Amino acid sequence: MAGKSPEMTLKAIGVVRRSFREPSSERLNLGEIASEIEIDPSLTEALDGLEDFSHIIVLYWMHRANSERLSLKVHPMGRKDAPVQGIFAVRTPNRPNRIGKTTVRLLERRGNILRVQGLDALDGSPVLDIKPYLPGYDSKDNARVPSWIIN
Amino acid sequence: MAGKSPEMTLKAIGVVRRSFREPSSERLNLGEIASEIEIDPSLTEALDGLEDFSHIIVLYWMHRANSERLSLKVHPMGRKDAPVQGIFAVRTPNRPNRIGKTTVRLLERRGNILRVQGLDALDGSPVLDIKPYLPGYDSKDNARVPSWIIN
Repeated sequence: MAGKSPEMTLKAIGVVRRSFREPSSERLNLGEIASEIEIDPSLTEALDGLEDFSHIIVLYWMHRANSERLSLKVHPMGRKDAPVQGIFAVRTPNRPNRIGKTTVRLLERRGNILRVQGLDALDGSPVLDIKPYLPGYDSKDNARVPSWIIN
Repeated sequence: MAGKSPEMTLKAIGVVRRSFREPSSERLNLGEIASEIEIDPSLTEALDGLEDFSHIIVLYWMHRANSERLSLKVHPMGRKDAPVQGIFAVRTPNRPNRIGKTTVRLLERRGNILRVQGLDALDGSPVLDIKPYLPGYDSKDNARVPSWIIN
């Protein structure tokens, strides 16, 4: 299957700037603190219009994840009380392609700097893409999740 | 900025199978027709537990997008009636990193095959990641969008 694939190499369009550098089991709490995304100045113009959205989707590279030793099944978020799941059924950063996807509130845009709330990425994470959050496309009503999920 | 980046090369974890091969201006209508995602058989076990979710997030490589000639600003979906926007304020496939993100309904899982509804990807698109859709994390209430958006 891999043999038929086109070359897929990513380039950072920016970087996450914040005061957290180390992976932590309290990773989701990172989202409570505002952080900044610094976009490459050559791409500043590509952000025009983004300030009209309250929320944006950030795709970033989880550069501190361990994908050398990839387990196919894990306890979700290390929770031993929850049943073991395939890694595609959980949001662990340890996955074949370390792409993180987080929807965040856009607090402010100043030129090539986006100030956001809700980004659970570490300082220095390469940013891969910014997309506008479209509720009619990105949000689903009546979604069903298994009982081990704590919403 | 790029000089400080780690090596970021993607590997396909699977491929989209459907009857649409050509890019089209009616791209979003692709979602109305069910399609299949064939995951690499070596990763089948990593899908275990996914069948407990009604919706999943598919990250895929938009292999037919034109990123050789990258415009920083475009009319959204080619709509000349809508104001020109930066490419990070629209969902055009012509972006620095051609990663598509679509949330779809999971109709069925059979081993390494996922049958889904709502996937606006072309046949042959390399699949990069599958994540469970978590409403409490992925959906945002009261999101604001500009007036040119048709939801």
